[in-house]
Amino acid sequence: MVSSTTKNCLAISGGVGGAKLALGLSHCMPAESLCVVANTGDDFTHLGFKICPDLDTVLYTLADLNNKELGWGQHGESWNFLNALESMGGETWFQLGDRDLATHCIRTQMLGSGASLTETTRHLCQALGVSVNLCPMTDDRVATIVHCENEDPVSKNKSIEPMAFQHYFVRDRCQPAVTGFSFEGIESAEPSGEFLAALASNKLGSILICPSNPFVSVDPVLKLPGVLDAMKASPAPVIAVSPIVGGQAIKGPAAKMMAELGMPASALAVAKHYRGRIDGFVIDEADALLKEEIEGLGIPTIVTKSVMVTLEDRIALAKVVLDFADQLTS
Amino acid sequence: MVSSTTKNCLAISGGVGGAKLALGLSHCMPAESLCVVANTGDDFTHLGFKICPDLDTVLYTLADLNNKELGWGQHGESWNFLNALESMGGETWFQLGDRDLATHCIRTQMLGSGASLTETTRHLCQALGVSVNLCPMTDDRVATIVHCENEDPVSKNKSIEPMAFQHYFVRDRCQPAVTGFSFEGIESAEPSGEFLAALASNKLGSILICPSNPFVSVDPVLKLPGVLDAMKASPAPVIAVSPIVGGQAIKGPAAKMMAELGMPASALAVAKHYRGRIDGFVIDEADALLKEEIEGLGIPTIVTKSVMVTLEDRIALAKVVLDFADQLTS
Repeated sequence: MVSSTTKNCLAISGGVGGAKLALGLSHCMPAESLCVVANTGDDFTHLGFKICPDLDTVLYTLADLNNKELGWGQHGESWNFLNALESMGGETWFQLGDRDLATHCIRTQMLGSGASLTETTRHLCQALGVSVNLCPMTDDRVATIVHCENEDPVSKNKSIEPMAFQHYFVRDRCQPAVTGFSFEGIESAEPSGEFLAALASNKLGSILICPSNPFVSVDPVLKLPGVLDAMKASPAPVIAVSPIVGGQAIKGPAAKMMAELGMPASALAVAKHYRGRIDGFVIDEADALLKEEIEGLGIPTIVTKSVMVTLEDRIALAKVVLDFADQLTS
Repeated sequence: MVSSTTKNCLAISGGVGGAKLALGLSHCMPAESLCVVANTGDDFTHLGFKICPDLDTVLYTLADLNNKELGWGQHGESWNFLNALESMGGETWFQLGDRDLATHCIRTQMLGSGASLTETTRHLCQALGVSVNLCPMTDDRVATIVHCENEDPVSKNKSIEPMAFQHYFVRDRCQPAVTGFSFEGIESAEPSGEFLAALASNKLGSILICPSNPFVSVDPVLKLPGVLDAMKASPAPVIAVSPIVGGQAIKGPAAKMMAELGMPASALAVAKHYRGRIDGFVIDEADALLKEEIEGLGIPTIVTKSVMVTLEDRIALAKVVLDFADQLTS
């Protein structure tokens, strides 16, 4: 542990980028002070397994089992299940490693026995020695739908095709142009009990929106009924870290999506997207020139090194963001 | 193909021993002439997967994917799923290899989509290049229950405990003493359509009971409603190959079970068990002295080398048994 704080921190995370900051945060405070809420809009059932990509990426990252090269799955992974499946004509567009399968198998079994996703996630955390409170945004089903432009190859007529997130993201490798997003089931979904408890805690010192995709990783979390109100009711400041650095996404389709949605792929546009929902914004040194304009939106902004390559980078960013929260509180 | 016959053969098989003879038979006739019916009383659902051990052993053997050392599963198998499961506190008493999992995954998916076990098995055969007609004894659920002697550690009172087959066979390594068997669901189960069609075919030249466990591999097949009647109605002779050689089972708990059931572990006792249900019996050279006594039961018997070590052994035994069927027919 590099430093410690007596205040709690709630981090809202998607996959890789969020997991990196979550890992940094876990080095800055006692495990019981950190709650990481992961997006579950990407979750889906595949080959009979319930798969929660963002929860798993954070879980594996906190357990130091994550595959640093791929950015998903476990390190030292083998692919014999998938190879056998392929040789038998099975569906292999979603890559399931042999070790990774055990996670999905345990989760699917537990859910099938009536456990909630929260309980299942807690069990997996304990099994992998993760003591940070990692929880799903909701125990209910929310499915992110990506609306994509579709051109009929014959008539050239364009239409909007709604696609399940993993079909867009993995199977079609983010190639279709997006026009918008919807979140199936979100109206009737409830934030998980752990999420609500973290938001309501009088020890809460910061609510951090990790550098994750604003549209498909963070928005599903923020759009859950009651979440924004609870965030506003909390005295803790809400701080977002820009996932866009120098006009590019560190990982994933955020920048491509922004262009397709008709907005510049910039930290400024991300700040505008979050305006009204955040109290502070963190941008990279590469975007220092945008600070003034973002603050002009009424959002206090700090400039720091936000690209996390090493563990030290993750911890350093976590410390900067936590210090920023302290500044905004005092 | 070593030789061919214009007559069809129906082989009733459990796991390893049956699969060996089935492989031998597949070298003696065109694929379309051979129907192998596998016991499904051992089938169970584990970790969400529908597992059919006997069907898989025959499938992998016919596909030349079987693990010759273990006697089950695939060769060149890896165990990373199982290792990960173990490290997370999962249930690992039933060994599931990474490649093997793909078979169970495809089967479970197909069954979940409404396909029958027959259709699922046909799909797996096609996927693995097996052209022999391998089919389950039934598409309905039949569960072999092993009744075991249980002594209360305190009171020393003995009772009979019914155990699911795989718990007895794998988890408890056949250690409990058996007192009998029952087959849950068998009264209302129907033999599979492929099985009934093979039995009713006017091309059928032989019905072979492979050297499998008489109690837990063969009896479930023979006890399915209508099977014995259909066997008797067929002009094809029914020939059983003794799984007991020199008082021992080549593999598995057959000899141990016989002792526990109060019968000598001998080919003679197997013949008595099958009496009234078979037209011919095949014993090993090691048991040549029993031939007279078995024939005294009214069962024509031949003596041959029945222990199958090499592929040539399997083919040779298959030829001998098929020739025996011809003799019994003419």
